[in-house]
Amino acid sequence: MKTVVVRNIPRADEAAVRRLGEFGAATVHEAMGRTGLMRPYLRPIYEGAEASGSAVTVIAHPGDNLMLHVAIEVCRPGDIMVVAMSAENSDGLFGELLATSMRAKGVRAMVIDAGCRDVKTLREMRFPVWSKAISAKGTVKATPGAVNVPAVCAGALVSPGDVIVADDDGVAVVPLAEVDKVLAAGEARLKKEEANRKRLAAGELGLDIYDLRKGLEQAGLKYVD
Amino acid sequence: MKTVVVRNIPRADEAAVRRLGEFGAATVHEAMGRTGLMRPYLRPIYEGAEASGSAVTVIAHPGDNLMLHVAIEVCRPGDIMVVAMSAENSDGLFGELLATSMRAKGVRAMVIDAGCRDVKTLREMRFPVWSKAISAKGTVKATPGAVNVPAVCAGALVSPGDVIVADDDGVAVVPLAEVDKVLAAGEARLKKEEANRKRLAAGELGLDIYDLRKGLEQAGLKYVD
Amino acid sequence: MKTVVVRNIPRADEAAVRRLGEFGAATVHEAMGRTGLMRPYLRPIYEGAEASGSAVTVIAHPGDNLMLHVAIEVCRPGDIMVVAMSAENSDGLFGELLATSMRAKGVRAMVIDAGCRDVKTLREMRFPVWSKAISAKGTVKATPGAVNVPAVCAGALVSPGDVIVADDDGVAVVPLAEVDKVLAAGEARLKKEEANRKRLAAGELGLDIYDLRKGLEQAGLKYVD
Amino acid sequence: MKTVVVRNIPRADEAAVRRLGEFGAATVHEAMGRTGLMRPYLRPIYEGAEASGSAVTVIAHPGDNLMLHVAIEVCRPGDIMVVAMSAENSDGLFGELLATSMRAKGVRAMVIDAGCRDVKTLREMRFPVWSKAISAKGTVKATPGAVNVPAVCAGALVSPGDVIVADDDGVAVVPLAEVDKVLAAGEARLKKEEANRKRLAAGELGLDIYDLRKGLEQAGLKYVD
Amino acid sequence: MKTVVVRNIPRADEAAVRRLGEFGAATVHEAMGRTGLMRPYLRPIYEGAEASGSAVTVIAHPGDNLMLHVAIEVCRPGDIMVVAMSAENSDGLFGELLATSMRAKGVRAMVIDAGCRDVKTLREMRFPVWSKAISAKGTVKATPGAVNVPAVCAGALVSPGDVIVADDDGVAVVPLAEVDKVLAAGEARLKKEEANRKRLAAGELGLDIYDLRKGLEQAGLKYVD
Amino acid sequence: MKTVVVRNIPRADEAAVRRLGEFGAATVHEAMGRTGLMRPYLRPIYEGAEASGSAVTVIAHPGDNLMLHVAIEVCRPGDIMVVAMSAENSDGLFGELLATSMRAKGVRAMVIDAGCRDVKTLREMRFPVWSKAISAKGTVKATPGAVNVPAVCAGALVSPGDVIVADDDGVAVVPLAEVDKVLAAGEARLKKEEANRKRLAAGELGLDIYDLRKGLEQAGLKYVD
Repeated sequence: MKTVVVRNIPRADEAAVRRLGEFGAATVHEAMGRTGLMRPYLRPIYEGAEASGSAVTVIAHPGDNLMLHVAIEVCRPGDIMVVAMSAENSDGLFGELLATSMRAKGVRAMVIDAGCRDVKTLREMRFPVWSKAISAKGTVKATPGAVNVPAVCAGALVSPGDVIVADDDGVAVVPLAEVDKVLAAGEARLKKEEANRKRLAAGELGLDIYDLRKGLEQAGLKYVD
Repeated sequence: MKTVVVRNIPRADEAAVRRLGEFGAATVHEAMGRTGLMRPYLRPIYEGAEASGSAVTVIAHPGDNLMLHVAIEVCRPGDIMVVAMSAENSDGLFGELLATSMRAKGVRAMVIDAGCRDVKTLREMRFPVWSKAISAKGTVKATPGAVNVPAVCAGALVSPGDVIVADDDGVAVVPLAEVDKVLAAGEARLKKEEANRKRLAAGELGLDIYDLRKGLEQAGLKYVD
Repeated sequence: MKTVVVRNIPRADEAAVRRLGEFGAATVHEAMGRTGLMRPYLRPIYEGAEASGSAVTVIAHPGDNLMLHVAIEVCRPGDIMVVAMSAENSDGLFGELLATSMRAKGVRAMVIDAGCRDVKTLREMRFPVWSKAISAKGTVKATPGAVNVPAVCAGALVSPGDVIVADDDGVAVVPLAEVDKVLAAGEARLKKEEANRKRLAAGELGLDIYDLRKGLEQAGLKYVD
Repeated sequence: MKTVVVRNIPRADEAAVRRLGEFGAATVHEAMGRTGLMRPYLRPIYEGAEASGSAVTVIAHPGDNLMLHVAIEVCRPGDIMVVAMSAENSDGLFGELLATSMRAKGVRAMVIDAGCRDVKTLREMRFPVWSKAISAKGTVKATPGAVNVPAVCAGALVSPGDVIVADDDGVAVVPLAEVDKVLAAGEARLKKEEANRKRLAAGELGLDIYDLRKGLEQAGLKYVD
Repeated sequence: MKTVVVRNIPRADEAAVRRLGEFGAATVHEAMGRTGLMRPYLRPIYEGAEASGSAVTVIAHPGDNLMLHVAIEVCRPGDIMVVAMSAENSDGLFGELLATSMRAKGVRAMVIDAGCRDVKTLREMRFPVWSKAISAKGTVKATPGAVNVPAVCAGALVSPGDVIVADDDGVAVVPLAEVDKVLAAGEARLKKEEANRKRLAAGELGLDIYDLRKGLEQAGLKYVD
Repeated sequence: MKTVVVRNIPRADEAAVRRLGEFGAATVHEAMGRTGLMRPYLRPIYEGAEASGSAVTVIAHPGDNLMLHVAIEVCRPGDIMVVAMSAENSDGLFGELLATSMRAKGVRAMVIDAGCRDVKTLREMRFPVWSKAISAKGTVKATPGAVNVPAVCAGALVSPGDVIVADDDGVAVVPLAEVDKVLAAGEARLKKEEANRKRLAAGELGLDIYDLRKGLEQAGLKYVD
């Protein structure tokens, strides 16, 4: 890994970022052909946490949050910091002092494949964090890593400037080049879901709405009383 | 596994189902001689979730929620859907559209040995779900499984019509044939616990209430200052 | 293991215990040179749980809560019971009846490297518990263990009378002999953090506050546009 | 759970048991419509371990191997002991003394949803064991459970007399009533696999042998250079 | 995810691939600045498994090995198939029939973020596999994925044509563009290690060879008797 | 944690260490009243690994093997290095160069609550290692920890000079002060086991040898045909 910091990255249009956030992680993932999710072990630190923004990527080392400090300097309002780790680690690399600094720079959220601490204060600040663990364990500031290079966080590849959409269901990553396509597919999906929701609420069955009966019969499903 | 759907199943008396629900999972498990619990990795999606009902069992495949749609058709008001998986999987097989459909049919809750999504909406709906994971990952509707055959969910055997009692402590399964016996044993246990609760609150020790001192002495336990 | 109960243990000064509790687990751990934490899989049963007190240590066996009853008798107001296990186990060794008994004796909290049940009632009682699992699974009262001997709980060594500081971030253990030193180091740390918090909130960077730029340059970190 | 021991159980024909063993766990599972496997965390204690036999089922408690001693008395030559646990536990409930006793009774193997110890000696004895863990942790002989009642072991339901087929790939359970059907389906499958093996070794592709190309095209799979 | 198969990919020079294989996973990872490893939960199916080759990447779905069949057609002698999954899954997607087909095409090894079966036969064939699990669980051939697109396998990003180096220590990925640089750095490292090995075997200490004493003193390390 | 190295530690008599090693981990653990085991996730890197020796304890940090180099200097022939970690970590802190250095100093084995690499070479050297993971991931030599202070390794407390007994079944720790008592208890246990082994091999049942029938009857165990 090169120890490098890329200062300037491309970012998506803010209106697009906001709309993707309104879709939520599940719809965005569906609109990308059921791809783009981080593993479900990343969990928000409070119920109802929601955020969308442009990814500033960080590669950090176990027990060392040096690169989070480095990364803040290149963040802009509307960004979300995404921290990948060089090895599995649950230490609390992120806490309320860093959150204070990030909020001062307009950063919207933290997604970290490691631990988080000071969660009581972070909840009071309503600073949303998706992390692998909650741990009071502190860190050093010693080993350089990288900022704004492609990184694998919780099983997903994230490039700088990709749009992050995170909520109670998890964290989705929209590649920058696919933002428009995902927006269109997401709008179509929402419209279809809204129609189906009404029919289901009225008692129609998914078996009929999605036309599943014939396939079940062909596959040999038997009904018995 | 036969790909079969059993339409009609026996169910317990509603008054019994309700009373077992008031007992809660821990008391029901004790009343069955400390058996009948699913593994504790199944967790409710919100604090205070509570449900009791008749099990409609489903065997589904990883990444495929076809059989949940199939199963809704045979559910009746008061049922709880219990989804066992043919292999370990954390995909979000269940979400708010299915919950909308199930609520329209009077289904009370979902117990699933896989993932759940749309949890923000499900919490707002107060639709109780016990799941192994929360994951935005969607599914196909492709491979037939089975409905209303005996199934192993989170380590416990569930037969169609068994009574499910689920709360913050986990999920208990009462075999249909044992409902009356469990009701009686549970009432006795509650009565005994209520008496003990008062004595403990007044400062008496469990050592004396449960008459444990003599056994400890015989087992060689030493007290030192 | 000797099956022994030590009745009298040294305890820290109550003012010190309270102040360490105000510091919280993260600050206490930092003030001890980043040591003294239990593993982060121990989690509180409700958000905002907080406690500090003197450790009464228990070594118990899987599926057996006999020694918790034994230990209550030697607890004093201000204590926290710390339960280590002789093997991995998620059974619900602790529930509301024991909590009722402990509260009657003035015990402040439970830290247990196993499962907990009756969590709905425990939350209503605001009785704080840090546990490895929530499980309705009950236990017998059969096998003697030990009370108030050194024990390893969730990876940390705890001696009787050590000060436990637990909150949303986890559980810290302050050896009795180090209480004064940790108090002093914690006060110094809080003061320094408060100053840094203001500077970070005003937009200053950690890179400058902690004087990290020169080290990064020496380590070869490159900035590119 | 009733604390009961059922002395006499039905068993499959020995020739059928042997032939199912020759099929192996994977083929048996396929021949049952891809069902009947225990979870893959059960692992053999040496490479090349293989066994088939009639299940004598045991339900035991964490840290307690009393019921294994009880079960040996009702075993017959050709049996395999299958131990389900009332809660998760990794203690070494089974070791070489019990294996010596079981071998004296003609028992062929042990399948246990808990730990195993004395593995060096067990390997020298070539006594095959599938377990969840290897652990030197010993046990008491205290709490009654059950023998030869239906039990859930590593996620699979096992009834007394079911045929167990275990090898390097895992553990399969053939319900006694399905033995003939599974034998027939397995023979057919082996014949088909043997034919396919030759064609694949000769360089033919699964795409052609299994006639997959048309479905891929319909599903929209694109080939690019 | 686009359901696409890329037929032609760039590949590294065979001499380079062989030499990287001789380095082994640990040296290659060090030569890349301590990066490029898959997570250590991927394990070889036999001790002494070793392979290096060009990555043909596959994205497959839980319980479905259709794309492995698709991918074989575009493999060339010297390739290693690398299977990433769209969600966590331990099913046995790969077994001896596919290995037979792959060997006929000159494919050297399989790296799969899921399960493997028929391991007894695979060991006899000496066909090396690194997998997340061993499981007899079979699969369907139903859902299209992708071949030869960038994929995340066991936490590492792999692009088609990257060099895979796998052995008892794990699996390393060398990006195609860095092969020459890694070769040079690896040779230098081996030379240095060889020199150090002799000095260490002769009783010299790492403290002196790596000149660590001064730093330890500055960091405040105290020696006491 | 104080960053300290204690140079001189007490050690047990070599004859005692050897005899405890012959007992093995399971017998030693039983002779200590079923205590003193590390958690079973520590596994040997080859079948048949065996070692006993005096513990030199190390506390190291994730991704950093500096203190292993420091500790070698204070090791003596017959020692076993026991590495505890300040947080969970699977990095390969230990490999063949360190093993070469340790062997030159007469150190017998490594027990490490983290990862190990170069396992192929370590197996050829027959240098026994018990570790939590196998990982090619390398480390820095940067952060001071401690040597020869009490440490918690894989859930067990180890003091410098304690006797480590490790084999295929796991790792046991005999406190220095209890060596004589454990030796005596172990000899007695071996004698009793040898007698029982013969009776069991001859077909006698544990039910009779351990006199369990009466207790089972009192506990209400029912036999049915």
